[in-house]
Amino acid sequence: MNRSELLVIGGVAAGMSAASRARRADPRLSITVLEKSRDVSYSACGLPWLAAGKLAARDLVVHDADFFRQKREIDVRTGVEAREIELGRRLVRGVETETGREQTFHFDRLVIATGARVAWPTIERLPHMFSANTLASVGALDVCIRQTNARQAVVLGGGYIGLETADALRTRGLSVTVLQRAERILRPFDDEITSRVEHTMTARGISLRKGSAAVAVNDSEVVSDAGRHPAQLVVVATGMRPDTDLAETASLTLGPTGAIAVDDRMRTSEPSIFAAGDCAESRHLVTGRAVWLPLGTTANKQGRVAGENAAGLSGHARFPGVAGTMVTEICGLECARTGLSEREAEAFSLRTRSVGIEQYTHASYLGAGKVFAKLTAERGSGRLLGAQMAGPGAGKRIDVAATAITARMTVEELSQLDLSYHPAVAPVWEALLVAAHEIMKQV
Amino acid sequence: MNRSELLVIGGVAAGMSAASRARRADPRLSITVLEKSRDVSYSACGLPWLAAGKLAARDLVVHDADFFRQKREIDVRTGVEAREIELGRRLVRGVETETGREQTFHFDRLVIATGARVAWPTIERLPHMFSANTLASVGALDVCIRQTNARQAVVLGGGYIGLETADALRTRGLSVTVLQRAERILRPFDDEITSRVEHTMTARGISLRKGSAAVAVNDSEVVSDAGRHPAQLVVVATGMRPDTDLAETASLTLGPTGAIAVDDRMRTSEPSIFAAGDCAESRHLVTGRAVWLPLGTTANKQGRVAGENAAGLSGHARFPGVAGTMVTEICGLECARTGLSEREAEAFSLRTRSVGIEQYTHASYLGAGKVFAKLTAERGSGRLLGAQMAGPGAGKRIDVAATAITARMTVEELSQLDLSYHPAVAPVWEALLVAAHEIMKQV
Repeated sequence: MNRSELLVIGGVAAGMSAASRARRADPRLSITVLEKSRDVSYSACGLPWLAAGKLAARDLVVHDADFFRQKREIDVRTGVEAREIELGRRLVRGVETETGREQTFHFDRLVIATGARVAWPTIERLPHMFSANTLASVGALDVCIRQTNARQAVVLGGGYIGLETADALRTRGLSVTVLQRAERILRPFDDEITSRVEHTMTARGISLRKGSAAVAVNDSEVVSDAGRHPAQLVVVATGMRPDTDLAETASLTLGPTGAIAVDDRMRTSEPSIFAAGDCAESRHLVTGRAVWLPLGTTANKQGRVAGENAAGLSGHARFPGVAGTMVTEICGLECARTGLSEREAEAFSLRTRSVGIEQYTHASYLGAGKVFAKLTAERGSGRLLGAQMAGPGAGKRIDVAATAITARMTVEELSQLDLSYHPAVAPVWEALLVAAHEIMKQV
Repeated sequence: MNRSELLVIGGVAAGMSAASRARRADPRLSITVLEKSRDVSYSACGLPWLAAGKLAARDLVVHDADFFRQKREIDVRTGVEAREIELGRRLVRGVETETGREQTFHFDRLVIATGARVAWPTIERLPHMFSANTLASVGALDVCIRQTNARQAVVLGGGYIGLETADALRTRGLSVTVLQRAERILRPFDDEITSRVEHTMTARGISLRKGSAAVAVNDSEVVSDAGRHPAQLVVVATGMRPDTDLAETASLTLGPTGAIAVDDRMRTSEPSIFAAGDCAESRHLVTGRAVWLPLGTTANKQGRVAGENAAGLSGHARFPGVAGTMVTEICGLECARTGLSEREAEAFSLRTRSVGIEQYTHASYLGAGKVFAKLTAERGSGRLLGAQMAGPGAGKRIDVAATAITARMTVEELSQLDLSYHPAVAPVWEALLVAAHEIMKQV
C-alpha cells in the first residue's frame, strides 16, 4: 500500500504547524514541505528584536529543518520555490532558488501556506533597503547596521510592522523618520489609541510624517513629497499582500479580500487543496464576513486545522474564525484590540456607541499606572462589537473582550463578569468593566 | 414630602458602594451609614502591605468619612455599632462604641453590609494577638512591630489571608511560622497549586506546619499540638464567618452557607432590607447553588446592586452571581482560580477530567518564564468547569476562563479563542489554550 503524500508549500508558521499536526494525525503519511528561503519555523513577530540588535537570527528559529526531518519525519526542502500547481497530474513544479534547477513534487493533498509579501512601492530597490517581514531580510538589515555604522534610517509605512521596526532602530541609537502615506497610522486602531502612540513615539524622538510617501531613494536619502530625509538605511513596510501567485496557477478561488477563499476546514475551492496563514482569508466572528488579517497566531491555528484535515480523508478540525485580536508594543506603549474598531463598525453601517475611559492597572496605593480602554457596542442590542486598550497589560486584558465577543455578550453581561482582583494585579473594577458600565448608560 | 430614608449598616466595601450608588440613583434620598469602627471605605485586600510596613494605614483609605459627607451627602456615622433591627417600627438600635450611648435610626430601606469576622479559635486573646482582616487590627499589628521589635511571629491559619500576612511579615525581616489545622493550605486551590505555594514559601524561609493547631498562647510562645513556637507576635487568620448577628435580630433568612440569603437583586427575605458583601451569599454561576465567597470585588459589585435597588422603589439592577474568581500572591507566586476546583467539582458529583500544563508566559527567546495552568471540564459535555493558574500574569490570564465559564463554553470553544499574541506579552498558544487542547483529548 502506497503512503499518501501530503505536500506543504511554505515552512514558516502556518506551513510547519500544518505539517506537524498532520504528522501527529497520521504517523504513516509522507509529508514534504517546500520553503523558498533557507529558514523554517521562525517567529516573524520577533523580528523587531533582531532589528534592534538584541537577538541573533538563530534565536528566532523555533525548530530548524533538521529537527523536523529527524524528530517528525517531515521532508523539509529549503531553498525550493513552488511555481506552479498542475492540478490534473497532482504535481507542483518548483525551482531550486540557488541553481534554478526545476523539480516536481507529487501530492495527494496539498496545503498552501505561501504567506504574504510586501507591497513594494514603485521606487527602485537598492541594497540598503530592507523589508521587515522575513528573517533573511531583517538579518541582512542587522548586518548592514553592524557593518556600515548607519546613523539615520527612514521607515516607509506606519502600520504596526513599520512602527515596531522604527522603535527597534531607535533603541539601537539610530535617528529614525517614519513616512506614512495615509493621514493615520496603525489603521486597526481608532484615534484615541493612535494619538497616544504618536505622542509616545515623538516623545522618544522618532520623527513621524503623515500624508507623506517616498518618491525616490538614493544611497544617502529618501525623497518624499514632504522633502528630503537623510538615510543610510531604509525599511520598507508599506503594507502586505497575500501571496496568491501559486494558488492562481491552479485557478483556486480568491475571496473578496484578495486572499485565498477557504471554508472553516481550511479547504480551498479544490477539495484536496487547503490553505492556511497569511495567504488565506478568515471569517470575522463579529461580521460573519471574510477578512484578511495576517497574524502569527492565526497562521498557527489555521495551519493546525489545515494539517489535521489534510492528513485525514475526512478531518473534522474547524477554524471558527477570528475576533480580530491583535497587540503591538511601540516605544513601551502596549496597544491591543479585538472585534471591530469604531471606524470599522461604522464602515459596516452598524449603529454604534463608543466610550473611552482610563482606569488604574491595579491598586493606586501601590503606585499603579493607568490603562486606557475603549469599547464599541451596537446601539439598541447593546452587543459588544469591539474593544481597544493602550497601556500596561493591555495585551492580556483585551483577551476578556475577545472571549466576550466570541460568546456574543452584551456590554451589560461584560459589566457583570467576575474578573480577578488583587491589589498587586488588578483594580476592584477592571478597566473593561468600568468602560462597560459607562457605555451601558448610552446604548 | 418627606425624603425617603436609606440606612446602610457597615461602611467598608459593600456598604460604601451601596450608599454611593444609591446617591447617584436618587439625589434626594436621605442616606445614613453606620460603621462600628473609625474607618470607612478602605481596601481590606491591601492590608498585607500595611502588615509589611510598606504603607501607612491612611494609604489604604479610598475616601474618608468627610469625603462622603461633603461630596456625596452621605451621613456617615463612624464608631456606631448597630445592634438590633426593630422591623415593625423600622428602626435600627445602635450604640456608640466609645461611650456606650444608645442611638436609634429610622429607615425606609435598609442595606446590611456587616461583613465577616474572624472565627477566633478557643484560646485566650492577648494584646500581641491580631486578626488580619481590619484596618484597626493590622494597624495595631504594625505599631506592635515598630514598638516592640518583635522578631518571631506565628500565623494561625493557612488560608490566603494567613499566607499573605505571613509573607508580609517575612519581607519585614520577621521569622514566621504558619500553623494550619487542616492537612492542606489554600483550600480553594487543588494540590498542583498548593504544592507550588508550599515550595515557594519554604524556599523563602517561612516555616509551615500543617495538621497543627494552637492550643495555647502566652507572651512569648504559641503552643500547638506539634510543639512550642516562640512568638512575640501572633496573627489570627483562622477563617472567617459571615457576620449575621444583626440580620438575625430581624429573623432574616440565612442560606445554606450560613450567610444572609439574598435574591439576584440583593433583597433579603424582608423586601425592604437588602444585604451585600461578606455577610451575604452569592449564586455560583457553575453550580447554580448558593455559595459564600467573601471577596472585595464581589462586595463592591453586590453593594452597587443593593444600593441601586434600595434607592428606587423598584430597582432593576441584578447581580447574576460569581464565577469563583480569586487571586492571591504569596512570596511572589501569583495564583489565580475561577469556576470549580477539581475537588469542588467532585464534591458536586460531577464527572470530571482535569489536565495541568506549563507554558511560557511569552516568547521564550525573550527570556520568558513559565506559568502553570490546570483546567477541569465535565466529561461527555466538555463544559469548562474551572481553571487554576500559578505564575507570572496568572491573575489577568484567569479572566479568560472566568469569561468562558460565564458564557458556558466548552473546552473546545475555549481552545479556539482568538487571544492576543505578541512576543513580549504572550506566547502564540496561551497557556489556557494549550491546556484546552490537552483536555480535549480526554473529555
